[in-house]
Amino acid sequence: MARVAVAEEPRRSQKWRERREQIVDASARVFARQGYHATGLTELCAANGLGKGALYHYIGSKEELLAAIHDRVMDEVMTGADRVAAAGGAPSAQLAMLGDELLDVIHRYPDHVWVFLHEFPALTGERAEQFRTRRRDYERRVEAVLRAGVTSGEFRPLDPRLTALAWLGMHNYTYLWLRPGGRLSARDVAKPFADIFIGGIAQGAE
Amino acid sequence: MARVAVAEEPRRSQKWRERREQIVDASARVFARQGYHATGLTELCAANGLGKGALYHYIGSKEELLAAIHDRVMDEVMTGADRVAAAGGAPSAQLAMLGDELLDVIHRYPDHVWVFLHEFPALTGERAEQFRTRRRDYERRVEAVLRAGVTSGEFRPLDPRLTALAWLGMHNYTYLWLRPGGRLSARDVAKPFADIFIGGIAQGAE
Repeated sequence: MARVAVAEEPRRSQKWRERREQIVDASARVFARQGYHATGLTELCAANGLGKGALYHYIGSKEELLAAIHDRVMDEVMTGADRVAAAGGAPSAQLAMLGDELLDVIHRYPDHVWVFLHEFPALTGERAEQFRTRRRDYERRVEAVLRAGVTSGEFRPLDPRLTALAWLGMHNYTYLWLRPGGRLSARDVAKPFADIFIGGIAQGAE
Repeated sequence: MARVAVAEEPRRSQKWRERREQIVDASARVFARQGYHATGLTELCAANGLGKGALYHYIGSKEELLAAIHDRVMDEVMTGADRVAAAGGAPSAQLAMLGDELLDVIHRYPDHVWVFLHEFPALTGERAEQFRTRRRDYERRVEAVLRAGVTSGEFRPLDPRLTALAWLGMHNYTYLWLRPGGRLSARDVAKPFADIFIGGIAQGAE
């Protein structure tokens, strides 16, 4: 009965949406610890204190839950990228701000990012396509800032795609060691990373 | 019977070792596609064309197989680091060589590296400890080259640990897109990455 309701009534109350977010967060922790494929609905129910019917009422399916975890990360990442674009400024300042924003998301959502980076191959069909598109959109933002810097002469001539991949690797990979409440804040890491990266692509560098 | 033989006779023939390596490689492919926890012995047997008894004769247990996949990557990575140390030269040249060697391993073993980077939390006890030690040993090699560069004045003052993590992230993360037979060779990537990184930590940069 609950499942039929999901299909028939896409508009949901604030309370429903908040509970759904809690479920997404708690399930991200479970997937991060034991893997998406190895996690059964029974464990998801236990982690959320819900029966199967109630869980379906909020998430529809296990793959929809995985997609929601991805969306939670991508929503935050894209919101950060929008803030950077709105702030404007020199390409080097924009790249530094993109790094700040990205590390802030990784720092706040270690479980989601773990799941995001490890389990994306489990998304299928339209969900996989949507995920690829959103990820590619973000990568294009980084590439655009790099191109702008080359055009303005702030950065030396470079391959925007390969340079964006280098930048993404350096930042994304922090998900393995950057932790809420850990020794280093996102800012502590973002600043020296920006110094290395921007120094390395500046006009007149290497 | 086969299992008792494994315990009683640790020295193995060349033929046994070669077959074991094939099993490690084929199993890395299976784990990379569907995850370690979600892969059963039945699937490992099918992928290797072996019965359970024969599989145990070569690998002992599923976790031992996972450890062997890790070792295969770490053996190659450490051999590369030894070559770099033996070659000597300026710290910047050593760091560039370390990048060449690391990307070469990632390029040749995409499945193993996928498993290595995703499934290490599944190792337990002594195997987990050994893995952490080997991984830390490698990270210390990178940190030592960075420290040498600061001492010689080739690199600006920097935090060796954080800078090594930046370098590792930039290089390791290529496992998501660097593929044997792909558009880019390991060298195509290693050179521009070294230019960015070494340019960014050079004395006088940023």
